[in-house]
Amino acid sequence: MDRQMISIPEPTLRRLPMYHHYLKNLRTKGLETVSCTYMGIELNLHPPQIRKDLAFTGVRGAPKIGYKIEALLRSIEEFLGWNHVDEAFIVGVGNLGKCLIKYEGFKQYGLKCVAAFDIDPKVIGKKIGDIQVLPLDKLIELSTRMKIKIGIITTPRTSAQSVADLMIRGEIKGIWNFASINIKVPNNIILQNEDIAPGFAVLSKKLQLIIQSGELGQEVQK
Amino acid sequence: MDRQMISIPEPTLRRLPMYHHYLKNLRTKGLETVSCTYMGIELNLHPPQIRKDLAFTGVRGAPKIGYKIEALLRSIEEFLGWNHVDEAFIVGVGNLGKCLIKYEGFKQYGLKCVAAFDIDPKVIGKKIGDIQVLPLDKLIELSTRMKIKIGIITTPRTSAQSVADLMIRGEIKGIWNFASINIKVPNNIILQNEDIAPGFAVLSKKLQLIIQSGELGQEVQK
Repeated sequence: MDRQMISIPEPTLRRLPMYHHYLKNLRTKGLETVSCTYMGIELNLHPPQIRKDLAFTGVRGAPKIGYKIEALLRSIEEFLGWNHVDEAFIVGVGNLGKCLIKYEGFKQYGLKCVAAFDIDPKVIGKKIGDIQVLPLDKLIELSTRMKIKIGIITTPRTSAQSVADLMIRGEIKGIWNFASINIKVPNNIILQNEDIAPGFAVLSKKLQLIIQSGELGQEVQK
Repeated sequence: MDRQMISIPEPTLRRLPMYHHYLKNLRTKGLETVSCTYMGIELNLHPPQIRKDLAFTGVRGAPKIGYKIEALLRSIEEFLGWNHVDEAFIVGVGNLGKCLIKYEGFKQYGLKCVAAFDIDPKVIGKKIGDIQVLPLDKLIELSTRMKIKIGIITTPRTSAQSVADLMIRGEIKGIWNFASINIKVPNNIILQNEDIAPGFAVLSKKLQLIIQSGELGQEVQK
């Protein structure tokens, strides 16, 4: 990991989309400035934490006025690279793949799926939304030619590693893996895993504890 | 938050499903025991971290032998409450809702969607997989009667808060929110937000830095 990366905490990176989403809402309501104190109440975060997070994008608030919402939105977008479009390939056109291809949110993050791949002859050649499903064996050639940098994996678990290997041979640099399995990539490849199991583990354990407390007639102390 | 909860770090809870998944794979391969050292190499984690995480489930390894895989699997399942079935309601039958209803993984986590709800007359009365789509105004009555404890929100952002409010009136205790928006719930309700935007923020920023380093002819130091 390079030095600049180490200096940006991952929790900060993960919170920036939330600030962005919240600020867009404020703009819709006609507001032009916002303070960390106000944001802190609405987002249930400590104002100094918000200030620190936003400073990473290079923007600073003015005393007693706060942040200019428009400037702050642009600053977050620029920092996260959302102000230019990254083209991506997606592999695996099952339920999850289709759901992601149709996901409206990608546009605002500057992500555009330009082609989908599968090995199933029943889906190859079909269109999902605007994009065509191509045979997987075209991936390496096309991604190299089109200089695609992002690959999204929505295959069954058993295929995820071999698809990642193909992507890397196709010069893809960042892999977004939704296949709920650990895949291995070389050090110069960015791997981001998305999985709903960890979230559910947190929910179900907390729920178990809260219900047990209820059954024992105890009040859960928050 | 009660005392027992504070003592279980959330990162530990989030890693347990990964161990579980990995151990199931080992079992499939016919292995009966595993050491933290071996797991550490395979999962790219420090062995003492793994030992600490697994100790929360109440299981300890034997020196030079390691853990019995079968016992460890059962211990994780019991700890996370996956050994009994939680019934859940899901609200919002768009692409994401359909995708989650059909998601095979829920079964292994002990989660079962027993009904779906929507306000769109075009989907009400239809079946998605095994489950029926019901009108949203039946939610409170049904969830109270069926003692449903988990509600899954897959609506558009604009409806998420009002759906959460309905769930709480229907005595649901845990809300799993996929609507990419902050919702507010009372302290005695467990809220777990799932959103792919934070993951993409991490991926796109790391990618931006790695590509910039490449353009500058520098090697990214990992």
